[in-house]
Amino acid sequence: MAIDKPLIFVTNDDGIFSKGIQSLVEVATRFGDVIIVAPDKPQSGMGHAITLNQPLRLNKDSIFKDLESYTCSGTPVDCVKLGIYEVMKRKPDLLLSGINHGENISTNVLYSGTMSAAVEGAMENIPSIGFSLCDFDSEADFSGAKKIAAQVIEMVLKNQFPSNVCLNVNIPKLPENEIKGIKIARQANAFWDDRFEKRTEQFNRPYYLLAGDFGDHDHGDDTDIHAIQKGYASIVPTQYDMTSYSSLEIVSSWFK
Amino acid sequence: MAIDKPLIFVTNDDGIFSKGIQSLVEVATRFGDVIIVAPDKPQSGMGHAITLNQPLRLNKDSIFKDLESYTCSGTPVDCVKLGIYEVMKRKPDLLLSGINHGENISTNVLYSGTMSAAVEGAMENIPSIGFSLCDFDSEADFSGAKKIAAQVIEMVLKNQFPSNVCLNVNIPKLPENEIKGIKIARQANAFWDDRFEKRTEQFNRPYYLLAGDFGDHDHGDDTDIHAIQKGYASIVPTQYDMTSYSSLEIVSSWFK
Repeated sequence: MAIDKPLIFVTNDDGIFSKGIQSLVEVATRFGDVIIVAPDKPQSGMGHAITLNQPLRLNKDSIFKDLESYTCSGTPVDCVKLGIYEVMKRKPDLLLSGINHGENISTNVLYSGTMSAAVEGAMENIPSIGFSLCDFDSEADFSGAKKIAAQVIEMVLKNQFPSNVCLNVNIPKLPENEIKGIKIARQANAFWDDRFEKRTEQFNRPYYLLAGDFGDHDHGDDTDIHAIQKGYASIVPTQYDMTSYSSLEIVSSWFK
Repeated sequence: MAIDKPLIFVTNDDGIFSKGIQSLVEVATRFGDVIIVAPDKPQSGMGHAITLNQPLRLNKDSIFKDLESYTCSGTPVDCVKLGIYEVMKRKPDLLLSGINHGENISTNVLYSGTMSAAVEGAMENIPSIGFSLCDFDSEADFSGAKKIAAQVIEMVLKNQFPSNVCLNVNIPKLPENEIKGIKIARQANAFWDDRFEKRTEQFNRPYYLLAGDFGDHDHGDDTDIHAIQKGYASIVPTQYDMTSYSSLEIVSSWFK
């Protein structure tokens, strides 16, 4: 009797036509049966947004030739929900999101559609991994990222995955043979030093464009930023429980 | 010499015209100088989404008569960023988000624009509080919520606020005098049991509407859900560090 291959759900936030998701699908097919549900347009920076009170479209397409794939009009988290509840015949064994064009280290995890899709997978109790390459170029070289992705997927499939957690994997922008390895890290406490560009259009009407730089305010050597800077891929086990347990007591003391 | 009053930044996700933000502004003016930057339309379920590569509009309005207020075309997190970097002359002493029409208990914190605005405030190192009333009605009675909000704001202004944290305050749908008090709680580990309604429109074209129920899968008596069910307002200290510290060791062991 044949053993069922793992059922692998692939999604992303850059949209179904991006090179990153094509690279991830290529890796995923080595490990199991792949179904793709991904946004029909770029959805970067959508965080954990969902579409409320508006129609969602889901269309079968043939981008991945002999693989079952769908485009969705909504956010990455919409894709995960529709994939699980409307597309998949059974619960997937693995959810992969990415490979994102651009890093999702540190607090970028909060803004990232790629990572929010993985977090949503964790909430559905599916082993879930978000992959991001530290290169925003739409024609970036994904060979190093594909190699790391294969290593991580292999480990996830053969080990017991922790509950209520997903993995945030970032891969440095380096040639495949220059990536030094994998470091397990914590999310760096760093932020965007936001700036807006104020411009004007016709009739002197103003508008703003977000244009910040990411500042490294955390000099720990156990962070994802540090790992990437040193030439390693980083993995941050990421949970959706945002309770600050260390603050429970102090806040309680205010109301005594 | 006059002591400067606290500068209080008020935002929300239901939009500047909602009853909830009007209630919160009413409470906030008792404690300091208030500036409002809020979405020009409902932005529920937008999570931590930001607007990338698209123009953002920011318009001064006169909804709050003698208070300085602005509508923003973007998400709640866009409002926070624009407010801090383009509107405020100095860093606000307090950021208040809400009062949301509808609960943001448990994992709803991830989908909630109200709470994402507060989380963004925490990332900017501003004491930040998200308020939500467990009543989705646009004409809900906010009197109990206003009373709790005043109590929490008073405590936050007179105590040292923990770093890298904001507060998630939920108020039960009860008459003011029936709210039993305030409980400090952890985020319940509960989820939407998602379902979609598949409908068809002209030419038999299908679309989907999100239509789940929130299921309580966490029976702890220390959760926000439990507090609300027992008639208390809940406060969850909420952090943006999503690292699962308890999983660092197990994931590390896979790569040894």
